[in-house]
Amino acid sequence: MAVSENEFLKKVLGGHRFSIARAISIVENEDPEAREILSSIFPHTGRAYRVGITGPPGAGKSTIANKLARFYRNQNRRVGIIAVDPTSPFTGGALLGDRIRMTDVELDAGVFVRSMASRGSLGGLSKKASEAADILDAAGNDIVILETVGVGQSELDIAGAADTTVVVLVPESGDSIQAMKAGLMEIADFIVLNKSDRPGADHGVASVQMVLKLKPATDGWNPEVVKSVASEGKGIEEIAVEIQKHRDFLEGTGLLKKRRQMRLLERTKELINERLQFVFWNTDREAILESRIEEMLSYRTTPYDIADELFITFQQQRDAQKSVKGA
Amino acid sequence: MAVSENEFLKKVLGGHRFSIARAISIVENEDPEAREILSSIFPHTGRAYRVGITGPPGAGKSTIANKLARFYRNQNRRVGIIAVDPTSPFTGGALLGDRIRMTDVELDAGVFVRSMASRGSLGGLSKKASEAADILDAAGNDIVILETVGVGQSELDIAGAADTTVVVLVPESGDSIQAMKAGLMEIADFIVLNKSDRPGADHGVASVQMVLKLKPATDGWNPEVVKSVASEGKGIEEIAVEIQKHRDFLEGTGLLKKRRQMRLLERTKELINERLQFVFWNTDREAILESRIEEMLSYRTTPYDIADELFITFQQQRDAQKSVKGA
Repeated sequence: MAVSENEFLKKVLGGHRFSIARAISIVENEDPEAREILSSIFPHTGRAYRVGITGPPGAGKSTIANKLARFYRNQNRRVGIIAVDPTSPFTGGALLGDRIRMTDVELDAGVFVRSMASRGSLGGLSKKASEAADILDAAGNDIVILETVGVGQSELDIAGAADTTVVVLVPESGDSIQAMKAGLMEIADFIVLNKSDRPGADHGVASVQMVLKLKPATDGWNPEVVKSVASEGKGIEEIAVEIQKHRDFLEGTGLLKKRRQMRLLERTKELINERLQFVFWNTDREAILESRIEEMLSYRTTPYDIADELFITFQQQRDAQKSVKGA
Repeated sequence: MAVSENEFLKKVLGGHRFSIARAISIVENEDPEAREILSSIFPHTGRAYRVGITGPPGAGKSTIANKLARFYRNQNRRVGIIAVDPTSPFTGGALLGDRIRMTDVELDAGVFVRSMASRGSLGGLSKKASEAADILDAAGNDIVILETVGVGQSELDIAGAADTTVVVLVPESGDSIQAMKAGLMEIADFIVLNKSDRPGADHGVASVQMVLKLKPATDGWNPEVVKSVASEGKGIEEIAVEIQKHRDFLEGTGLLKKRRQMRLLERTKELINERLQFVFWNTDREAILESRIEEMLSYRTTPYDIADELFITFQQQRDAQKSVKGA
């Protein structure tokens, strides 16, 4: 399925919406073609600038993502949005109507919006979001926005897949100690204090700035605080300007290359880890593990002993394969 | 270092506070003796009942853990508390003075309190907390309380290591949609609505109950809502009663055994995964990966190709080892 031979991949790279949607679904569902698609599109990635938008629920992240997309559209840039909702399996994100909230940008052919939910398994969601971003990147988008809904570890991971990470807070987020506790301050390249027409906004800015001062300066970039009232479109241009400023900084210092290098390294290590797991956990070893549970539960054997035993069978299996090959 | 021969392990099992603290430090720092300690104490675990206390910052989890510990002490039960703070590396949890907040229970020789912070790396914190719980379990505690500070994925994991998980909210947590978004409702065996002397408490209870109704009944247990004002000691006995009720339920249905079985299975798989990583990532393969980064960054090779290449060297190395052994 080399790119040149494949009509489907050509369509994805050409920005054909239906094909892009299908490619993302294939990746999301871990269909067998996923690896080939990702491998084929990889040489076409690296052009889009990736913006992560994260923060606590209700801070206005979707509105900001939405208005920011419109702003870029007015500059004639193509925008893709991935809205990730690592919510509980029993709501599936549907309760808050996430899937319909961004219809106004979705009607514009220059903006591709995709929701991804965890559907019960948090594992792999950040990986899949990052792969979906690759697809939108290869499909010719200039900007890819990765928007997350909650404040969990997977949101931190997803934001970590962005070139610039915007953390959205509201004045009521209070003393911003909570945001810090959730690890948001570390990943913030800058902070947006949304809904800043509310009382307490100036106090909120001061409070966020105080917390940011606690953060040791990294690489010479000092995260600033931008005020917005996204629902009225106020502060959107300032957010775009701050994103551009951070982008210029990253490109000027070579840090963009360095960050992307780190991400590719991580990706490679994840691929290897998946493969090691796949090779190790065959039905034989699954069966051994199952058969030993009772002993472990009655504390006659330990997880450490069972791990040893399974690891030895792994070694032996490979030796046996070698003998067969050598015969 | 068999238990019978080892003075240090005898002391740990005998409940000697300094030795317990040292054992936990060894596990926390991943010192070489960690594995031997954990392996040796394992047959002595499984007696303590493990209670997870989690919820958003400021809900009063520490106060509840503290008062609950006193309550159990009054029943002459031995209690260990592990307070986990997966905070940002730049505060290290020190900002809020977590380490001093539980001094009043700490003065009681029947309660062992230990703080664990992530110090920059979230990975492995839930594993270490669980191992520390094993040590407190083997050391003869009747109850081990695992208290977490934030609302991230690692808190969910840590709570998942408990037999009964208590989620603490406050009326201002608002519509409890946020707690649900953060995945807390799924892991809750029951909810404590703390600070319920505040206005809006009854509305808060109703709101939590509504959200709990959305959760499909699992295994026949219906999570209830318990009101408390922990700072005044109100509701602590009710929390202890609800924990006991859940414990009776788990023991009566055989679910306790099942949950613990799942945890031991997970533990075994983690041990194997660590080992696979250790065997795979030798200096040769690290060097190959490093040498290919430039090509990957200029999109001349893909992470998928590099993963393939590294995996082949893994196979070859094992084949070579076999030849040497066979010669």
